[in-house]
Amino acid sequence: MKFVVIGGDAAGMSAASRAKRNLPDLEVTVLEKSYDVSYSACGMPYNIAEPESPIEKLVVREADVFREKQHINLLTGHFVKEINRKTRQVRGVTDDGGSFAVSYDKLLIATGAHPKIPEIPGCDMKGVLALNSLDDGRRMKHFIQKEAVRRVVIFGMGYIALEMCETFRELGIEVDMIKPGETFLPWLNDKMSRIIRDELTSHGVNLYPGCSVQRIEPSQEGVRAVSDDIILEGDMVLVAAGIAPNSELAANAGLQLSVDNAIAVDTAMRTSDEDIYAAGDCADAFHVLTGKRVWIPLALRANRAGWAVADNVCGKQVHLDGVAGTSVFKVFDLQVARTGLTVHEAFDQGFEPVSVTVKSRSRAHAHPGSKPIWVHMIGDKPSGKLLGAFMLGQEGCAHRINAVAIALHSQMSVETFSQTDLAYAPPFGPVWDPLLTAANQLLKNLSKQ
Amino acid sequence: MKFVVIGGDAAGMSAASRAKRNLPDLEVTVLEKSYDVSYSACGMPYNIAEPESPIEKLVVREADVFREKQHINLLTGHFVKEINRKTRQVRGVTDDGGSFAVSYDKLLIATGAHPKIPEIPGCDMKGVLALNSLDDGRRMKHFIQKEAVRRVVIFGMGYIALEMCETFRELGIEVDMIKPGETFLPWLNDKMSRIIRDELTSHGVNLYPGCSVQRIEPSQEGVRAVSDDIILEGDMVLVAAGIAPNSELAANAGLQLSVDNAIAVDTAMRTSDEDIYAAGDCADAFHVLTGKRVWIPLALRANRAGWAVADNVCGKQVHLDGVAGTSVFKVFDLQVARTGLTVHEAFDQGFEPVSVTVKSRSRAHAHPGSKPIWVHMIGDKPSGKLLGAFMLGQEGCAHRINAVAIALHSQMSVETFSQTDLAYAPPFGPVWDPLLTAANQLLKNLSKQ
Repeated sequence: MKFVVIGGDAAGMSAASRAKRNLPDLEVTVLEKSYDVSYSACGMPYNIAEPESPIEKLVVREADVFREKQHINLLTGHFVKEINRKTRQVRGVTDDGGSFAVSYDKLLIATGAHPKIPEIPGCDMKGVLALNSLDDGRRMKHFIQKEAVRRVVIFGMGYIALEMCETFRELGIEVDMIKPGETFLPWLNDKMSRIIRDELTSHGVNLYPGCSVQRIEPSQEGVRAVSDDIILEGDMVLVAAGIAPNSELAANAGLQLSVDNAIAVDTAMRTSDEDIYAAGDCADAFHVLTGKRVWIPLALRANRAGWAVADNVCGKQVHLDGVAGTSVFKVFDLQVARTGLTVHEAFDQGFEPVSVTVKSRSRAHAHPGSKPIWVHMIGDKPSGKLLGAFMLGQEGCAHRINAVAIALHSQMSVETFSQTDLAYAPPFGPVWDPLLTAANQLLKNLSKQ
Repeated sequence: MKFVVIGGDAAGMSAASRAKRNLPDLEVTVLEKSYDVSYSACGMPYNIAEPESPIEKLVVREADVFREKQHINLLTGHFVKEINRKTRQVRGVTDDGGSFAVSYDKLLIATGAHPKIPEIPGCDMKGVLALNSLDDGRRMKHFIQKEAVRRVVIFGMGYIALEMCETFRELGIEVDMIKPGETFLPWLNDKMSRIIRDELTSHGVNLYPGCSVQRIEPSQEGVRAVSDDIILEGDMVLVAAGIAPNSELAANAGLQLSVDNAIAVDTAMRTSDEDIYAAGDCADAFHVLTGKRVWIPLALRANRAGWAVADNVCGKQVHLDGVAGTSVFKVFDLQVARTGLTVHEAFDQGFEPVSVTVKSRSRAHAHPGSKPIWVHMIGDKPSGKLLGAFMLGQEGCAHRINAVAIALHSQMSVETFSQTDLAYAPPFGPVWDPLLTAANQLLKNLSKQ
């Protein structure tokens, strides 16, 4: 049997490796358009902050290891252009000008996502960069060094944009962030959003929400982002205004797409063609609370989905549970974590959300070094169900959020959550864990008329 | 209605305060034998490490605040000797030589626990100290300073003993630890137990497991602990060989006791007398996995049970869920966390435990500063249910354990746990959270013949 994988990143290489471990005789071919496979894309902001550390340090396993040790037919520089479902063939072009056709019995589309580039003049200029693939990271690192970048304009205020602020500031680079939306972080409540805003500005980052860039044009410094309200000059522009799934190949093959144009898959990662799977940032998932399709591209899901595809291709019957959208990122000294639904998302999904925001501490009363922790927790009034939580603080947020994630997987009520037995010791938190303080308060709010 | 509380620590003062908040006209009397109420006993090891910081910093709320602001009839220096259930009266003696009798409609026994003192000669000598009440802490702090303590012998190797090692070493005090049991930490597996052992010895702590002290006698240095195998000299002995519930008062009143002589309570914290409640370290609880009675004295439970008693006294119908025994403590640079059952406990409870120990990392591949994390996870073979987890590492253990605790409250299977959506970012962990790596591996072991 021939198992063909399009895309050699997290989902693709996880699937290829596991399929070979499951069935060593299986013929596994991976078609990757770049020359980088199996790397930690999420590590790029941290690597770029260290000019002396080669970006190749982020490679988890070298291409030749897959080829020689795992006997995977890994073809880099192979850009797939077409899936022919009738002939069960994948066709494309190679980097050296040739073309190729590969037959499959089972196919995995693991094409990932791409940064959304605003449709404004000048985005193709030198010095206008995005950060998605390892090659993007390599290019950016090289550009920063070669051009001695001193000033960057960031388009967007999402995870990558926020993480890159710290990177740039560590390199001594001035940062201006700009985006069209008025609300700085629309998925967070005002109070916590303001704390992140203060963290950024106190580290010298200039924020311009509510400003639409009309065009990018050359300037003496390098580039100039022109909006109605302001003109921002820089040596470089980082476009970090969100990502979109690479689903065109699937759509052209007539496969069903779903929310945000992600490829629709069932719980076995099968697309609308039962011999074609999709996994990773190009595919959708079911939300653990609503059971509805969502597109939340995250690394853990990509790896897990890759494994599930491999198992299913090899004859097991693996179905994945839903996703809760659990994530964490770092903004300078702050940990920002979330899981589940925001108040707005909950409302849109037909819940009757009630929320609470509490300020607690990262260590016990009188324990030295304690920092504030904020928890925003959301429950559903009629059912009493826990719907989500957001946490913010200098310590104790990144891993605490997982307790709420597990609760969401259990469809736990706020009341049951408030009764759970969580760990306590003075260096690690107050007797009442910040999550329990939030749950206790939310319970009161839920029972109000 | 008269609500009388015996014991003014975590459970007692939580109950008294909440009862007053619930029903401001309720007559609430607290009888406390010492003069300290509402303090963080768990913070004592950290406070003793700071000679300049008064131990009163651990007091969360002063006695007079309860009296004047909350109108609680708080009687310190009142030692209850007898509960008369027929006359509904509590009688005792005061510190100044008088006696008292107080009538109750509803009574809460919140007498806490006491350190087990070995039945060997010399335990009453000056310089042989335990650490349970704030007064114990005060006495120890004073003794260390006044006697210029340079060398301590610790009896026992439990939580308090381990936490106090760091305290003593920070004060430049030499530490010998001794206990009768051969196994250093019987509740932890060998591999992880050895890591803690190495952490202690690398900080200069000398360990003597498997040595029974026969007697304590005076020596030139101060005291001398004599066992068959070794003689340990020191200026001070810390007795930290476990604690036992203060349930004599309840037993003498004919109330039912249960495991480890803790006072038996139902889910509403009611004893075998429906007008008498018990809460805190003197009372038992139901285990969340087995539904059976256990005695796991921990601070969070004490506070929560105090609240539940107050609510029930005030006419609400509050029932508490079971406990998972979630805890965390610090041994020098290590975080040690646990929840649920050990392999041995699981076996004794009729489960068929299968376990796994994995070594993972606290940060992502290639992220600087990553430390090893060990996870020991236990599941039940026939049911596939998750039974418990133990974690060990320099970072990322204290709060991660809560995810497992929540899973235990949900009676979650290892398989479901392995599918949960946990947070990932390079500074905070690998893509596959250490708990997921453990669950994935445990799942394999559970499915083996």
